[in-house]
Amino acid sequence: MAKDFPSRAENYAQWYNDLVIKADLAENSAVRGCMVIKPYGYAIWEKMQAALDDMFKKTGHVNAYFPLFIPKSFFSREASHVEGFAKECAVVTHYRLKNDPEGKGIVVDEEAKLEEELIIRPTSETIIWDTYRNWIQSYRDLPLLINQWANVVRWEMRTRLFLRTAEFLWQEGHTAHATKEEAIEETERMLDVYSDFAENWMALPVLKGFKSPNERFAGALETYCIEALMQDGKALQAGTSHFLGQNFAKAFDVKFLNQSNQLEYVWATSWGVSTRLIGGLIMAHSDDNGLVLPPKLAPLQVVIVPIYKLPEQLAAITEKAVQIKNALEEKGISVKYDDRDTFKPGWKFNEYEFKGVPVRLAIGPRDLENGTVEVARRDTLEKAVFQITDIENKVINLLDKIQKNLFQKAYAFRENNTHQVDSWEEFCDVIENKAGFISAHWDGTPETEQKIKEETKATIRVIPLDAKTEHGKCVYSGKPSTKRVIFARAY
Amino acid sequence: MAKDFPSRAENYAQWYNDLVIKADLAENSAVRGCMVIKPYGYAIWEKMQAALDDMFKKTGHVNAYFPLFIPKSFFSREASHVEGFAKECAVVTHYRLKNDPEGKGIVVDEEAKLEEELIIRPTSETIIWDTYRNWIQSYRDLPLLINQWANVVRWEMRTRLFLRTAEFLWQEGHTAHATKEEAIEETERMLDVYSDFAENWMALPVLKGFKSPNERFAGALETYCIEALMQDGKALQAGTSHFLGQNFAKAFDVKFLNQSNQLEYVWATSWGVSTRLIGGLIMAHSDDNGLVLPPKLAPLQVVIVPIYKLPEQLAAITEKAVQIKNALEEKGISVKYDDRDTFKPGWKFNEYEFKGVPVRLAIGPRDLENGTVEVARRDTLEKAVFQITDIENKVINLLDKIQKNLFQKAYAFRENNTHQVDSWEEFCDVIENKAGFISAHWDGTPETEQKIKEETKATIRVIPLDAKTEHGKCVYSGKPSTKRVIFARAY
Repeated sequence: MAKDFPSRAENYAQWYNDLVIKADLAENSAVRGCMVIKPYGYAIWEKMQAALDDMFKKTGHVNAYFPLFIPKSFFSREASHVEGFAKECAVVTHYRLKNDPEGKGIVVDEEAKLEEELIIRPTSETIIWDTYRNWIQSYRDLPLLINQWANVVRWEMRTRLFLRTAEFLWQEGHTAHATKEEAIEETERMLDVYSDFAENWMALPVLKGFKSPNERFAGALETYCIEALMQDGKALQAGTSHFLGQNFAKAFDVKFLNQSNQLEYVWATSWGVSTRLIGGLIMAHSDDNGLVLPPKLAPLQVVIVPIYKLPEQLAAITEKAVQIKNALEEKGISVKYDDRDTFKPGWKFNEYEFKGVPVRLAIGPRDLENGTVEVARRDTLEKAVFQITDIENKVINLLDKIQKNLFQKAYAFRENNTHQVDSWEEFCDVIENKAGFISAHWDGTPETEQKIKEETKATIRVIPLDAKTEHGKCVYSGKPSTKRVIFARAY
Repeated sequence: MAKDFPSRAENYAQWYNDLVIKADLAENSAVRGCMVIKPYGYAIWEKMQAALDDMFKKTGHVNAYFPLFIPKSFFSREASHVEGFAKECAVVTHYRLKNDPEGKGIVVDEEAKLEEELIIRPTSETIIWDTYRNWIQSYRDLPLLINQWANVVRWEMRTRLFLRTAEFLWQEGHTAHATKEEAIEETERMLDVYSDFAENWMALPVLKGFKSPNERFAGALETYCIEALMQDGKALQAGTSHFLGQNFAKAFDVKFLNQSNQLEYVWATSWGVSTRLIGGLIMAHSDDNGLVLPPKLAPLQVVIVPIYKLPEQLAAITEKAVQIKNALEEKGISVKYDDRDTFKPGWKFNEYEFKGVPVRLAIGPRDLENGTVEVARRDTLEKAVFQITDIENKVINLLDKIQKNLFQKAYAFRENNTHQVDSWEEFCDVIENKAGFISAHWDGTPETEQKIKEETKATIRVIPLDAKTEHGKCVYSGKPSTKRVIFARAY
């Protein structure tokens, strides 16, 4: 395995790409822009799914499944949605192939042309709200709290494993409500679920807030987001929750009889996170030795490696190792005992370090004599010798410590890389020479935001929910502003 | 809710369709041939997924994810595969839409035509074996035991909710092995997993065996299947496990260095079950009163309904009901306490009966006095009065009894509807007048099978693994035969 890949300082983009590929998380496929998620990467996604699905269910949501295909005309119904989504997409035009009459394999059968083209869903608001029309008649049918786990396709020109791919996996919640207040409450509830997941499962501190109108979801009245900072000082949008108002209800004619027996349009939200989170997880914590995974999402949490010269030593070590493994597994920890004799301990140490396994235990003959185990933690690379008594609880405590430490470390990194900036010169200097989050005043206009983007490639990542009211001047235009927003270059 | 749908005897096909729609399991979507799986139906799928996924992992498999799109040319590589799968499929030809220059919505941008068309996967052997080429070099890389949960598309002309839809959800296992024996062993292992799942989770007895060459998977050397009998006497193929030999390895040039350092083609299997199983579940157990669900797959296992006239009665009943609910939930049973005052108990009884909830508890004031609960089971529609002491264990026992009873009932039905037939007249008579499985001798030729199909619409469903050697004459041709096979009309 070994470190035949650049360090973060040498080439961050290459470091990331090599890490994803060499650690067997994902790879590019034969289909342009589409990735293959390999078993080790998919195991992280399964852990994310399980945790999120549980949180969705605890907040009253149920899962359902809607078609992959969306009739082209559906996109034209919601004016801003079509601009945002219907352009770069996969279009199904035919439903049959036939043998080439000239004998060259198979060709599209022109007689099997669809009357209306079908779009592979880039997001499912349109098909879902077309369906909701039949599900909602009265206030008694509301709220509808539905989530879908699915694949979606956006024909991206420049792709990057996990972070931006033509096809990706995600969940999309689509809820329907009787009142505006309830819909906004739902939008905010799901933002909280996402930030809870990011911070407590991914060990990833996030800023919660609004997107500026320029960055809003196509069709939303308000887009809430969680925004994280990566180690190269670029921002990653990690999840969004949209208050859609009555836009989709109007576009698809979804009305309900309210308690006063009047017909009203239904209020909507949608919210989603995707396999992009795996990219964020990697970029937030990993280092020049390889992956660093938070224990709560690591497919393998503990590895045990025997150190021995003679076969009879191995037998005695194995007995002890299996005891520890069983004790940990009983507590719900995933453990591998790697007693392969085809690899040396040093090779195994490197391998599991590279794969980001949070805790490594090594047991040798002297440990057996002394009743000890060597314990190495992946986050700090520190080693210690533990007494073997009650080792399972010590390891569980250590996993918990690692989880918290990763969060603290990422939090400190963000704090150290958030710059309060009050002049345009400073803004440009920070963007060019330091990167990170810039907290600055903005005059609230899309024009200024656009100009800042053109000049620096920085965008408004988030207008924090907890931004203090503070009188200042826009860092670009000098016009008055009442609060700071967060700028950064972003993935 | 109520019974505004035909009985099975009146119109089986309509009974099925109405049941699926009125019980909120699924519905047809705006996209031809595609269904919307509604929350109640999806909850059954989630339970199926959880049980199957656990069984796959216990037999050493891991999950991964491969692209939705398959380049058209991949299908031409395996000769019989292309005949079976590449014809009726969704073809992506373009990757962009644009505003109609004439102002009529959006149109396909002809400048964004793909160089090579992409097919929405109807099954993933081709894209997966193209990927495996890079993953497999030596015998040390084998076996590869990978499963994928995914959506697939087959452009079916006549569709039926769950049983046959253009898009459906499934799992597809794709494994790679160093030897033929190992691959066959895997094929048989997964057949056993499927029959275990069908019988112990779905309460659905299945015959295990081979498909005839005519009915084999396109590209397989041998297709194993589990075959079930529905209440109308038609067969349902419930799962298949394919031994693919070296066909896909040869088509995609996947070789490995064996232990003797020689290059060999890799051996393959694939196996899958789909949302079709939900259709089979419904058709096997449900009755003229609505759904009947086996407890192990029922989204809601127990419902508690209070019977009262006065509010103070409700309070006392609620206290008891919540106790029971908590006690059952602690044991992992899903329970709903339905204390809505907008519906009468009778309405609720009908509703939960219709939805197939296995056990209903009713508690009234007299029950409180007597320390009793009224218990109704969905499978037999029997009611009994239970002493409330230790009620949770009594209910759990009852759920177990229901699970077993459903299996026994379906098993007895299959036994009563399997006809041993030795003449062509009898064969035609049974097919026309009795339906069910026909156990008959067959001369082993595709020609005879084809003729029987043309004359009766019956096909060979399965050549049972446990078929006795028995000398007989083909029921159609009179030629010699050494074992009986199972014929039926099928879904």
